Amino acid sequence: MKEITKTLDLMLDFGVDGRTLIPVVTQDYSSKEVLILSFANRQAFETTLETGYATYWSRSRDKLWTKGEESKNRLIVRDIRINCEQNSLLYLVEKEKGGACHVKDSTDEYYSGCFYRRVKDGRTLELI
Amino acid sequence: MKEITKTLDLMLDFGVDGRTLIPVVTQDYSSKEVLILSFANRQAFETTLETGYATYWSRSRDKLWTKGEESKNRLIVRDIRINCEQNSLLYLVEKEKGGACHVKDSTDEYYSGCFYRRVKDGRTLELI
Repeated sequence: MKEITKTLDLMLDFGVDGRTLIPVVTQDYSSKEVLILSFANRQAFETTLETGYATYWSRSRDKLWTKGEESKNRLIVRDIRINCEQNSLLYLVEKEKGGACHVKDSTDEYYSGCFYRRVKDGRTLELI
Repeated sequence: MKEITKTLDLMLDFGVDGRTLIPVVTQDYSSKEVLILSFANRQAFETTLETGYATYWSRSRDKLWTKGEESKNRLIVRDIRINCEQNSLLYLVEKEKGGACHVKDSTDEYYSGCFYRRVKDGRTLELI
């Protein structure tokens, strides 16, 4: 393993072609709720830095994805943290409006974050 | 994409051989600090359920890894959440003792979590 735990130089490795995906945890800056787990390649990371809006690489659609781009429910990035091994990122964000998940709850509102279910007994889930 | 957003059945896909890695966010149950981003295969997930201690699959060592197993600074899992698409997990944990990161700070204590550096300007990092 590379010894990069103490450096203060950014050494994120997106691969030679910039397409290696790095996992990104997105957390609400105020409530500390973990909202989303997604991925970034170099383009997504640089777009996030340039625009200030959380931007990921969608694995299912295989394209750049600025969360809430169409609905104008974007995630404003207030702080970016990096882990000891420099192989994952943490975005601390504020929501423009509404929930950050694309799924609606029983009141027809988008869930605040994507982790709205608990693993109950290793087989079933419950809404929290 | 599979429509599994509303089900209350656990449908985590670890692949036919159980070795597909699912990203796991580990968050402090009380402080809400995001501590670690790691991965689980079926064996790691089931070990976590059975023992109650956060257990991952170490990609660098290619083996099962119960965090803090040797130092007895394990992470006691209080709650497990799953995301809308059932392709990532969130462990809410309490620490047995000390920090959850394997890197020490300037006072020779382990960092509380691994995200102790901020990406400052897209090139350099600062300790927080």
